[in-house]
Amino acid sequence: MRLTQFSDYAWRLLMHVADQDGQRTTIADAAKANNISRNHLMKVAQRLAQEGFLKPSRGRNGGLMLGKPPEAITLGDVLRVTEPDFALVGCMAGERCLFTARCDVPSALDRALQAFLEVADRQTLSDALPENMVVNKS
Amino acid sequence: MRLTQFSDYAWRLLMHVADQDGQRTTIADAAKANNISRNHLMKVAQRLAQEGFLKPSRGRNGGLMLGKPPEAITLGDVLRVTEPDFALVGCMAGERCLFTARCDVPSALDRALQAFLEVADRQTLSDALPENMVVNKS
Repeated sequence: MRLTQFSDYAWRLLMHVADQDGQRTTIADAAKANNISRNHLMKVAQRLAQEGFLKPSRGRNGGLMLGKPPEAITLGDVLRVTEPDFALVGCMAGERCLFTARCDVPSALDRALQAFLEVADRQTLSDALPENMVVNKS
Repeated sequence: MRLTQFSDYAWRLLMHVADQDGQRTTIADAAKANNISRNHLMKVAQRLAQEGFLKPSRGRNGGLMLGKPPEAITLGDVLRVTEPDFALVGCMAGERCLFTARCDVPSALDRALQAFLEVADRQTLSDALPENMVVNKS
């Protein structure tokens, strides 16, 4: 069971932005510091900005800041945006199998998933780096 | 977030075996009925037999039966055996990132994963097909 690399990079980008002591940072800086492809990180940043987790600004002094306070950004909320789906097995994405009509497993997996997300909802960005983290509370 | 196809096939094979009205079935039958590669299913069956979930027998009347009663086989137990790991992000498998030394996210994800597995532990094979299921209580 894995999360996508997209989710991994999204959370790391948010941590990078939160860790800049209130200064703007750029995708290029974040890509270099985290050794991640800049193009890949650009797509991640666009998605996070669409959902209000990041606030980009253009121009000479442009860059990225958090779109909301770090204590208002939860791991669960970010995963709901960055994971393409939570179809743990094929039938949860509409595939049929021999047992589809009478099988209770998708609902059990969905309950398990909700339990997972409830815990992730309690982890905020400001919890994520409990020591030495200086956040920009823009 | 996805489970592996190996886990998906493992649970479907267990359901197929449990659904045979106490009669032995074979990997060939299960592969055909479920439209799954026989070679792939062979590996799944070997793993499940190693862990006591299936009981294979050889010979002319050989085949597969459950290794324990269906109410003693839980989704959580099977997933612990069939998932290669539960490293939801790279750092949970030993990769390092810029934040590794001071980041609390792996422990949060581990707590979320335990919540997931606790729910999966409550789903047994006999719960999985609540209607029309006839099981072999060998």
